[in-house]
Order: sequence, then structure tokens, then C-alpha cells
Amino acid sequence: MQQLEERILRDGIVKDGGILKVDSFLNHQMDIALFERMGQEFRRLFAGSPVTKILTIEASGIGIACIAARYFGVPVIYAKKTKSMILDGEFLTVKVESFTKKICYDIMVAKRYLSPQDHVLIIDDFLAKGNALAGLINIVKQAGAQVTGCGIAIEKGFQNGGKRIRETGIRLESLAIVESMENGVIRFQR
Amino acid sequence: MQQLEERILRDGIVKDGGILKVDSFLNHQMDIALFERMGQEFRRLFAGSPVTKILTIEASGIGIACIAARYFGVPVIYAKKTKSMILDGEFLTVKVESFTKKICYDIMVAKRYLSPQDHVLIIDDFLAKGNALAGLINIVKQAGAQVTGCGIAIEKGFQNGGKRIRETGIRLESLAIVESMENGVIRFQR
Repeated sequence: MQQLEERILRDGIVKDGGILKVDSFLNHQMDIALFERMGQEFRRLFAGSPVTKILTIEASGIGIACIAARYFGVPVIYAKKTKSMILDGEFLTVKVESFTKKICYDIMVAKRYLSPQDHVLIIDDFLAKGNALAGLINIVKQAGAQVTGCGIAIEKGFQNGGKRIRETGIRLESLAIVESMENGVIRFQR
Repeated sequence: MQQLEERILRDGIVKDGGILKVDSFLNHQMDIALFERMGQEFRRLFAGSPVTKILTIEASGIGIACIAARYFGVPVIYAKKTKSMILDGEFLTVKVESFTKKICYDIMVAKRYLSPQDHVLIIDDFLAKGNALAGLINIVKQAGAQVTGCGIAIEKGFQNGGKRIRETGIRLESLAIVESMENGVIRFQR
């Protein structure tokens, strides 16, 4: 999506260790007009596919998912992250390893909000190693629901998360795929 | 706001210890059509007041704030919660005590996203003791910006958070004020 790529080139900051900072418009301060364009693009990409719920994960996916949900007319569920969980049987849970934070955490969704009748579009802001996304897919499958696909704002194409998800046959659409960031120069895969 | 009150009566669950669970439509699963009505109501209530940014706090405030921002045409910033913070001078921070979780945490906003020229509308899903809201107000003041007001989805009128904030002269608008929940019966303040 050209508008997102242009914004990444203008305002994204490349940091050591393969970090791309986009917190001026995507995940600390959020440009809602841009999110609306992204929501429309997700709607265009998944036109004709059944979507009954959008699933995302706290915290940075929530804004994009909520704005996108306007174009699908469906509720949003956000998975919660927790380190100390009381398993009372009411939650679908999966363990996820964080690439940037080097920790393991559990993610959880209340069972009653996903049913076998649901067709779920998973939305998140970033895709790198794909651990969080794989966790969300696992949760949808635990519920017996269908994964319609995954919509990502920014995919780091030079890490293997996207490849790993696509190889499972799940449809994955990223609005911008960063191919490389060598010497601070951001290049996109087209 | 009548539509929100009706939804609380229909789907809210009163739990021991003064807890009101509304996670089927407000803060786990999110009803975006309801959020749009809430956003329109915030716009109506703060019509004529200057708003250049909306500030909220992760995670449950983000969805409401993003949808509301559509009606104000401004960006949203969400304050991040953290227990172990590296103070590198780039962040405005304040310590907050959580009523429900019985822990202390720091909340932080990058300095560069709030300036003395900003007029900030603070939006959150819940107001009980008001500690998080007081923290957000503190952050805006640290930045030298103006607090235009606070917009809350559900205020627990029987706790003292709303009183405390209003006594400071800050405008606070809650879309539903729960007056009591005795014996599981929810009554609203009108």
C-alpha cells in the first residue's frame, strides 16, 4: 500500500538490531486517517471472504483492528498477554516467545467469544518472526473456528515469520513488506 | 447515554468486590458500532472545545479512543504501562497504583508527542478510584499542554474517582455513571 510505504520512508526510524520504529504514526501515536485507509485496503483484499470476527492482540494491534472492523461490520476481540495466569477453564491460551523482549508470555482469549461458526480475520501491526501471529492462529483453531486470513500493517520480509505462516496455507496480506533496512535504507518488496 | 446504559443492563455482570464485567462489548470483545455511537456522543459533548490530540492508556482504552478520534480528526496517543522502566529522558512518566490489580506501575508517553500547544482530550473505558486518569492528567501537565477534558465510558459513581477529578476543575464527561450495584442490581445516576 503506497501511502503506508511512503509514511514508513518519511517517519520510520531504523535502529540497531533490525528494529524499525514507527511509533509516531502506528504504535504509540496513531494516525487514524491512515488507519482508515488501511482498513479500507484490508476490506478490499478480503472482499468476498467470510469474516464474522476480527482478532488482534494487545496493545498495538487494537487501534488498527478497531478501525478496520468498521469496514467489515464485525466485533473485535483482543487477546490479552499475561505472565501469571489462573487457568480456570474459561480461556483459550497459548504460550508465545517475544523476539524483541526476549521473554515468554501466555496469550488468552475467553472461550465464549469464539465459536466453531466463526470466520476470523487476524489483524496486527507488525510481523517479524511470526510468534504472536502463530499464537493467535492456534487460539482460533482451539476454538474450532476458521481462520479467514491475516492482515498485517508492516511485515519484515527479511525475517521468516511471513514465509512460515504462508507455508501453512493460511492467507496472509501485509500492507507493506520491508525487504531490507541495510545502512538505515528501507527497501520494500513489491 | 441511553444505548450504553441499556447495554450494561443487558450484558454487564456484577461480580464480588464491586467489579462490573463488561468484557462482552467493551474491553475484551469490542462492539465497534456501539463505540461509534460513543465517539459521536463525545464529539457532541465536547463540541466547541479545542482538541488537538486524544490521549488514552493501554490496553482497554485504545479501541474507544481510536473510534472517537474519527469524529475529532486528531491523532491518538496511548500511554504505555511498564513495571521496569529505563528513564532516558525521552519520556514523560508518572507512577500509578492499580485498584483492581493491587500493584504499582509507571505510565509513560514519549515527550515528542505532546507539546505546550496541544489541547488534549483524555479518553478511557472505566473510571473507579481515578488513579489512572489522574496519572494521564499529570502527564499532560508535565508536557505543558492543556487538558480540554476527560471522556469516560463507564464511571463508578459510588467510588470517589469522578468527584476527585471534578473538584480539580477539570471537565469530566462519563457516558454512563453507575450509582450502585447492590445485590447485583445496577442503578445509574441520571
